[in-house]
Amino acid sequence: MEFMDQDFLLGGETARYLYHRHAEGMPIIDYHCHIDPREIYEDRPFEDLSQVWLGGDHYKWRAMRADGVAEKYITGDAAPYEKFEKWAETLPRLIGNPLYHWTHLELQRYFGISEPLGPGSCREIWERANEQLRLLSPRKVLARSRVRVLCTTDDPADDLRWHALLREEGDFGCRVLPAFRPDLALQIERPDFAAYIRRLGRAAGIEIGDMDALKEALDRRLDFFASMGCRAADHGMARIPLPGPGGKAALQKALRAEAVGPEEAESCRAELLIHLAGAYAERGIVMQLHYGVQRNLSPRAFAALGPDTGFDAIAGGADSGLRLAGLLGAIEEAGPVPKTVVYSLNPTDNAQIASVLGCFQSAGQPGKMQHGSAWWFNDSQSGMRDQLTNLANYSVLGRFIGMLTDSRSFLSYTRHEYFRRVLCDLLGGWADRGEYPRDPDALGRVVEDICYNNVRAYFGFDAEADE
Amino acid sequence: MEFMDQDFLLGGETARYLYHRHAEGMPIIDYHCHIDPREIYEDRPFEDLSQVWLGGDHYKWRAMRADGVAEKYITGDAAPYEKFEKWAETLPRLIGNPLYHWTHLELQRYFGISEPLGPGSCREIWERANEQLRLLSPRKVLARSRVRVLCTTDDPADDLRWHALLREEGDFGCRVLPAFRPDLALQIERPDFAAYIRRLGRAAGIEIGDMDALKEALDRRLDFFASMGCRAADHGMARIPLPGPGGKAALQKALRAEAVGPEEAESCRAELLIHLAGAYAERGIVMQLHYGVQRNLSPRAFAALGPDTGFDAIAGGADSGLRLAGLLGAIEEAGPVPKTVVYSLNPTDNAQIASVLGCFQSAGQPGKMQHGSAWWFNDSQSGMRDQLTNLANYSVLGRFIGMLTDSRSFLSYTRHEYFRRVLCDLLGGWADRGEYPRDPDALGRVVEDICYNNVRAYFGFDAEADE
Amino acid sequence: MEFMDQDFLLGGETARYLYHRHAEGMPIIDYHCHIDPREIYEDRPFEDLSQVWLGGDHYKWRAMRADGVAEKYITGDAAPYEKFEKWAETLPRLIGNPLYHWTHLELQRYFGISEPLGPGSCREIWERANEQLRLLSPRKVLARSRVRVLCTTDDPADDLRWHALLREEGDFGCRVLPAFRPDLALQIERPDFAAYIRRLGRAAGIEIGDMDALKEALDRRLDFFASMGCRAADHGMARIPLPGPGGKAALQKALRAEAVGPEEAESCRAELLIHLAGAYAERGIVMQLHYGVQRNLSPRAFAALGPDTGFDAIAGGADSGLRLAGLLGAIEEAGPVPKTVVYSLNPTDNAQIASVLGCFQSAGQPGKMQHGSAWWFNDSQSGMRDQLTNLANYSVLGRFIGMLTDSRSFLSYTRHEYFRRVLCDLLGGWADRGEYPRDPDALGRVVEDICYNNVRAYFGFDAEADE
Repeated sequence: MEFMDQDFLLGGETARYLYHRHAEGMPIIDYHCHIDPREIYEDRPFEDLSQVWLGGDHYKWRAMRADGVAEKYITGDAAPYEKFEKWAETLPRLIGNPLYHWTHLELQRYFGISEPLGPGSCREIWERANEQLRLLSPRKVLARSRVRVLCTTDDPADDLRWHALLREEGDFGCRVLPAFRPDLALQIERPDFAAYIRRLGRAAGIEIGDMDALKEALDRRLDFFASMGCRAADHGMARIPLPGPGGKAALQKALRAEAVGPEEAESCRAELLIHLAGAYAERGIVMQLHYGVQRNLSPRAFAALGPDTGFDAIAGGADSGLRLAGLLGAIEEAGPVPKTVVYSLNPTDNAQIASVLGCFQSAGQPGKMQHGSAWWFNDSQSGMRDQLTNLANYSVLGRFIGMLTDSRSFLSYTRHEYFRRVLCDLLGGWADRGEYPRDPDALGRVVEDICYNNVRAYFGFDAEADE
Repeated sequence: MEFMDQDFLLGGETARYLYHRHAEGMPIIDYHCHIDPREIYEDRPFEDLSQVWLGGDHYKWRAMRADGVAEKYITGDAAPYEKFEKWAETLPRLIGNPLYHWTHLELQRYFGISEPLGPGSCREIWERANEQLRLLSPRKVLARSRVRVLCTTDDPADDLRWHALLREEGDFGCRVLPAFRPDLALQIERPDFAAYIRRLGRAAGIEIGDMDALKEALDRRLDFFASMGCRAADHGMARIPLPGPGGKAALQKALRAEAVGPEEAESCRAELLIHLAGAYAERGIVMQLHYGVQRNLSPRAFAALGPDTGFDAIAGGADSGLRLAGLLGAIEEAGPVPKTVVYSLNPTDNAQIASVLGCFQSAGQPGKMQHGSAWWFNDSQSGMRDQLTNLANYSVLGRFIGMLTDSRSFLSYTRHEYFRRVLCDLLGGWADRGEYPRDPDALGRVVEDICYNNVRAYFGFDAEADE
Repeated sequence: MEFMDQDFLLGGETARYLYHRHAEGMPIIDYHCHIDPREIYEDRPFEDLSQVWLGGDHYKWRAMRADGVAEKYITGDAAPYEKFEKWAETLPRLIGNPLYHWTHLELQRYFGISEPLGPGSCREIWERANEQLRLLSPRKVLARSRVRVLCTTDDPADDLRWHALLREEGDFGCRVLPAFRPDLALQIERPDFAAYIRRLGRAAGIEIGDMDALKEALDRRLDFFASMGCRAADHGMARIPLPGPGGKAALQKALRAEAVGPEEAESCRAELLIHLAGAYAERGIVMQLHYGVQRNLSPRAFAALGPDTGFDAIAGGADSGLRLAGLLGAIEEAGPVPKTVVYSLNPTDNAQIASVLGCFQSAGQPGKMQHGSAWWFNDSQSGMRDQLTNLANYSVLGRFIGMLTDSRSFLSYTRHEYFRRVLCDLLGGWADRGEYPRDPDALGRVVEDICYNNVRAYFGFDAEADE
């Protein structure tokens, strides 16, 4: 096969048929990303390929560091082309890495460049791509990528002003909706917790002096987010908290900016999470749980560059299945369990997650509990394949809500293409080997459901997506 | 390849040769299942496909719940055909799930139906299959499946009356033997423990007032089981217990129906298990250890439906390798280690299990310590392939005792076919790629050994199987 | 494909091209093995195939035990040919095991025998191989295997006399260098610790009465080792130690041969390791960390045979990623982090290791932090493939330093061939499927780098290897 041509990753006839006929043209609902809504509102053209690719992408930064590139060319003050050149030098050694494929998919789809990037082609590609880039803007990329709905990630204290401006302006083909991410309200050990809570209280129009008031404030903000179209909440955590004693008292201490211990902090976090789960269920909002991460591992780099600069890693999770089961059981005892999507950064958690979620599925809500797509470090070919196979083995693959970008970059929508190719290759292979009937309609339906229909129904985006 | 035809899962010429020539026709020894011996004795014809497939199969129940089917059609009072129809609707979305393949293997082998089941074919298959079903009965299914030996799962307090009746009646081509499963005698924290122990005492003809008496009672029951042909014991546990202080005192408390703490309960459990291991070794009985499960995760479902209804999951097991090594070391210090088969429900334990067992293998007993077949949630194609590859990497695959059903259903014997196809595909692939000599006799011997000869010799079923 | 012919494991055209053109002829730098330098110095011819293969290879011993062979034929007093015969009987059942392949690669490469070994061919192969063996010696095997540099494993108290003799004698085509393995100086709980420390003190010319003196002694020995050409240090541990209180006091107790608790011992170990990491960084010495092992699991076997006889296993490591991050963070806070290679025996640690190491990469040192090659139980085909895929997914595969033997045997250099074939098959497959440009030069460069150039530059062996 030719290098990354139209049949990239599609190993058999049925895979190719499925992708080109049923996956390629489907719209995208990006229910989880980190794009700044202001950038969409302002819709400024991009500066150059260095800004777009290397301006904030800590995946690429990590790869360059591992390749021995000096920080000057990564987060430092080197000229844009110098940075790009370093990236082009590193790239050929990234053989087998998803960054290698994403880079070339982006060159192909957004700039019409199908030549491999490397030291030899660097200068020419820089020029050709930048020429194309001038014709693009955030909204144009979203349109070209057929993104119908995009959920940002927002703090409960946020006034959602850019979302409001986008709503005022009206439809441009993609609905931009906020998502509720109250991590700061649950991290009571942080030194800036009390200050944050004051900010949250102002946003909610309430003075937060205890657990009840904090719950009330979160509920009010959730109502406001819902009024702005929010359908998804997200919780990031090092590990899943379990209920225990002392949560309320710990919160009081934290509000007085006193130190709290890890166990009472966990109790407090669990109580808030259980409350919020009920609030989500009541409002039909999907709860996402992300765990298995350890952050800011390099003290030197953290001092120099701060968070989210490429110094996070996968954490171990032997008891994560027990914790997940414990939390969901506690939520169920307190009231209805919301629709829930669970992601661990540790791929060895996959079997546990799928089997635990199977215990909380329920009548009338197809695919209510979802094992989220291979996430962050794991959205490689083999990571996606493992997650999909795991899901097929332990659950109902035909109900999967599929891919998200989790990205800060507008060019990341090719990750959906990557996912869809892996999906069609897997399903087509099964059919070609006689493990599923080679029935084009039945297979096509499964593909379209996983690419688009399931996520649309799951979040209730029907109206938004049809417009 | 055609949908699930005679060469299903057999990717190469050698795989096909091995399966059809050396695996397909081999008899079955099902050394671990949950079939009720009364059903075999009474040998009543089956009611309909819904009873057979959906009457007690919590694998299928889980899948239907994940697909959003209402409980009425799962464990509720819907009519048999309505339940079957719901199953047929869910099935096409179970693409890649072992249930998809098992369902069709059962339709092919027991009812001669090779059409895929789905909403369109549901009514016709219901009628054709039920017609065939009337001609079948438990013993006819066992005969058609070539099951020579079948080990049930029995409590030590059980009087084995159905086994006795079956023995009296004499041979019908399949020997039905009891297996010793003393879980209730080791779960001293359970509220009904004292009552259970009184029942056990009556069965053993002994008053159980302390550890020595309990050991004596278990030994007597084991002797009785052995006299009834028992060759296998089984222990299910959340995690492997390690020796510690306070076990005897904890037992006294539990016998007085007082609460016991988790650590002293573990000490007690370890002491009993070490004693039983010695008793098994003495009598040539195989010890099976099952762990890595968490049970009854949904409080709501447990209240409504009770245990074993599809609400169990995989538990994490980071220290399970250390625990397994600790227990086996303690058994070895106390006396001879019995033949042992170890199964964890967590597939990430595979490498640990195989490498720990390698430290307790011993002279003159080929394959004495066995890493059990991919179990419960893991008997998918990829689960089996991983277990077999792991075994091949770390141990002597040619000594493997192979597949069991672990099933409550008579139609589950097609899981042996599934396993044998995966096995032949793996071995045939190695030979076709030059990784093993393409010597039909040598390969055929390995296949026949893993399908039948090894398990027959391992449990000492030679006489039974030859009759 | 024919049985293990020249294209063994090479599934496609590009794989075959890459192996035969770019991998097969590359020299070897074995930066980590357990060969005794005395054997190289004395260069005595080998006795017979039993001595070479079964004299000390606990991989084979384990396999024979699992196959039921009596200890007499393993470590006992059976005649050499009897032992060899038992091995030949076990071998065909080792289908899929790396020992099966290594055995035949060794027969092919060192004895020109391409017939499969088994009971039928045993006698003839014994005779033919022994005839060839008489023409070989340690140095001849090293020359034939193109080993340019070989690092042994040496205790800091060792006088390196055989290394000195080898240096005096001058070049014979392979540089033999010591590696610094101070495990005994860190295992302060061992009963013989105080005695060992006295020995170390004598070697360093210092009386060791406290932590500072111990550090000083280790530094002096490290300087001596460096003066003898040492470029690598190695630490084996059950689990990674983290800094904590009481380390200095614990050392004092241990020096007085008093008992120390596990936590204070860990603190002591962490302090020493952090100190040594700084010492390595200062001298440009590579630090290797090995963990995830549990040793001497069978009390019976340990009493009879002692350590390193085949009774070790993989240990669980859920928190190993957190520990690795914690240790590296502490090292970084204390000063520069040395070049580091990390190996866990537990393959489920792979994703954690690669992602944690990505947080400590740094400018100007390409591939500074390395996830070591699949180790010990894991150097199977699938183990290597998993490690390489994991590395490609999470890091820069093109900077990988590749394979080591970790062996006590001179014939183990075919493991490099095994690794290179797996590598070329993986890379060639990617190119053939269009996932990387089918550019022979670019691919060839990656292959040659991973086989040889990277490890040469990483350890700074340029001068040695060029001679």
